Amino acid sequence: MSQKMLILVDGKLDIFTAKTAVSLIRYRPGEVVAVLDRAHAGQDLEAIVGIGHGIPIVASVEESLAHNPDTFVIGVAPPGGQLPDAWAKYIRHAIEAKMNIVSGLHTYLSDRPEFAELAALHGVQVQDIRKTTEDFGVGMARAASTAARRILTVGTDCNLGKKLTALEITGSLRSQDKDAVFLPTGQTGIMIAGWGIAIDSILSDYVSGASEKMVLDHADAEFLVAEGQGALMNPSYSGVTLGLMHGVLPHDMILCHAPQRTTIRHLSIPMPPLAEHIQLHEAVMKPLFPSKVVGIALNCFGMAEDEIQRAVEAAESETGLPATDCVRFGAAKLVQALLDRIQDPIES
Amino acid sequence: MSQKMLILVDGKLDIFTAKTAVSLIRYRPGEVVAVLDRAHAGQDLEAIVGIGHGIPIVASVEESLAHNPDTFVIGVAPPGGQLPDAWAKYIRHAIEAKMNIVSGLHTYLSDRPEFAELAALHGVQVQDIRKTTEDFGVGMARAASTAARRILTVGTDCNLGKKLTALEITGSLRSQDKDAVFLPTGQTGIMIAGWGIAIDSILSDYVSGASEKMVLDHADAEFLVAEGQGALMNPSYSGVTLGLMHGVLPHDMILCHAPQRTTIRHLSIPMPPLAEHIQLHEAVMKPLFPSKVVGIALNCFGMAEDEIQRAVEAAESETGLPATDCVRFGAAKLVQALLDRIQDPIES
Repeated sequence: MSQKMLILVDGKLDIFTAKTAVSLIRYRPGEVVAVLDRAHAGQDLEAIVGIGHGIPIVASVEESLAHNPDTFVIGVAPPGGQLPDAWAKYIRHAIEAKMNIVSGLHTYLSDRPEFAELAALHGVQVQDIRKTTEDFGVGMARAASTAARRILTVGTDCNLGKKLTALEITGSLRSQDKDAVFLPTGQTGIMIAGWGIAIDSILSDYVSGASEKMVLDHADAEFLVAEGQGALMNPSYSGVTLGLMHGVLPHDMILCHAPQRTTIRHLSIPMPPLAEHIQLHEAVMKPLFPSKVVGIALNCFGMAEDEIQRAVEAAESETGLPATDCVRFGAAKLVQALLDRIQDPIES
Repeated sequence: MSQKMLILVDGKLDIFTAKTAVSLIRYRPGEVVAVLDRAHAGQDLEAIVGIGHGIPIVASVEESLAHNPDTFVIGVAPPGGQLPDAWAKYIRHAIEAKMNIVSGLHTYLSDRPEFAELAALHGVQVQDIRKTTEDFGVGMARAASTAARRILTVGTDCNLGKKLTALEITGSLRSQDKDAVFLPTGQTGIMIAGWGIAIDSILSDYVSGASEKMVLDHADAEFLVAEGQGALMNPSYSGVTLGLMHGVLPHDMILCHAPQRTTIRHLSIPMPPLAEHIQLHEAVMKPLFPSKVVGIALNCFGMAEDEIQRAVEAAESETGLPATDCVRFGAAKLVQALLDRIQDPIES
């Protein structure tokens, strides 16, 4: 169902912090009618984040109404974790303007009577993407038995393109008439695909079980392309990452990397070389399933063309694996590597 | 505060399945007045699990009343995950007999009106050990800065003595007049210590944050001995395990192992050799903190004396590290290895 989305950014408008907004603009084309960001109101969105030509940046819910939004999406985490008063006001205004509210926050808006009651009054929905009450149980390494070829995007860090890479690989496989299913594991992936499980928001014991369930529910697809979460070397999210890996039990992993990131996000820990990341990802899978990293997806946002070319070449020569920037060059090179490994598994 | 506990086992009465009961008998001596288990009622508990001399096994709540229990503890997971009717009946009977209810289940008993109302009527409490509403946030590698020497027990599998080993190490350090604090991370550890966080029952995103918080809250102790959870190579629990490791950032790890376990629990995956476990545990820590496995704790339950001796020698020769069975021989050998590494860090 097509929507007309107003997306709250209100903070740091870059592709990393505003990744939900940028992803929805990229993968729900034509459905984002405006972006709400006081700091950048009136500026050119495309000039700032590289996409979103013609989508206005507005300073208030009122200002957005000229574009007829029917859905108000909160896709950024508030500074400090608490819902700022300004945001609560936006939400109330959006409800009063008959918009449905879609939130990816850990704090559930639908649990707050002020919003729930106002939404009921105006006949709209408050949907918390991360909210689930399902008991998934623990994973039991059952994914290993699926007919589907299982692919998982992983990362040298969080927030550098695992979702985008999975979506691009899925699209590229489909363009070759393959039956490929994208498995959404996070809030934005769910907003894009319209289904999924936010595995960072369920009981910690159930991460591998929930991941396994998504695989088993689509066991007969030709390809399953699971959206990675977090990063094995980022202590903020590594537990979720490993649970996902051990739930999906991928045949193949694509390692996502941002060449310009020299330390782990939000920390002063130096970024280890790609070879160490590859080795560690394969090592934690080895006891359970012989999974291999078969390609490198680079996030080259903000880099010049010649820098990107050099980064791709450097990654290929460092790892001996095909590398690309999916935003610039598409995912065809990675898909070729994935198909080659099926043809010639001994090579890997 | 001393309690008089009736512990529900009702299922498989062995030290692995009934680990909460066995742990409470071991570490809350004199406070377990009876064990409820229909299948073994009237039998000799000590003959079955090796400890608990004189503690009766009863077939019903009524039968336990002769021993004046004031607390009914549910320490085993029900078969199939759902609360069996028989257990609901036990709980109601226990409440009617004025016992407080302490549950380690993922399903919260205090959320069920039938129990909450009955408890209110009889003036007793229904306490769900795993229940927490606290927002811990994600871990940020802050544990690295504590003055305390941080020790974490890890395992080749789940359910083979990580809690016991942490408690024995804590006790052994204290017997040498060291200021050592046990950090309880699971339901039984919490029941024993009277505080802690069940990290398998919080939002998956917060496992490292909650683990880190426990460390920071006791940053000035001389030694922190954190109770391990799950196992890096067991796909059911590995995410929780890694989140805990990356939250605690231990200086030293003690690897717990059951020599007779040839496959990963509940799965047909062969148990890798100890050297691979050690390597993997150190590898996932390496980017964040130079953590080392410094000793092996063997769970030799059910093995003959000479088999135990051979298992200890085999583990030592296989790994080059000191090994022991803490139940038979205490934790002194492991504590010596931990103290030696502080004295001579270059050696490690």
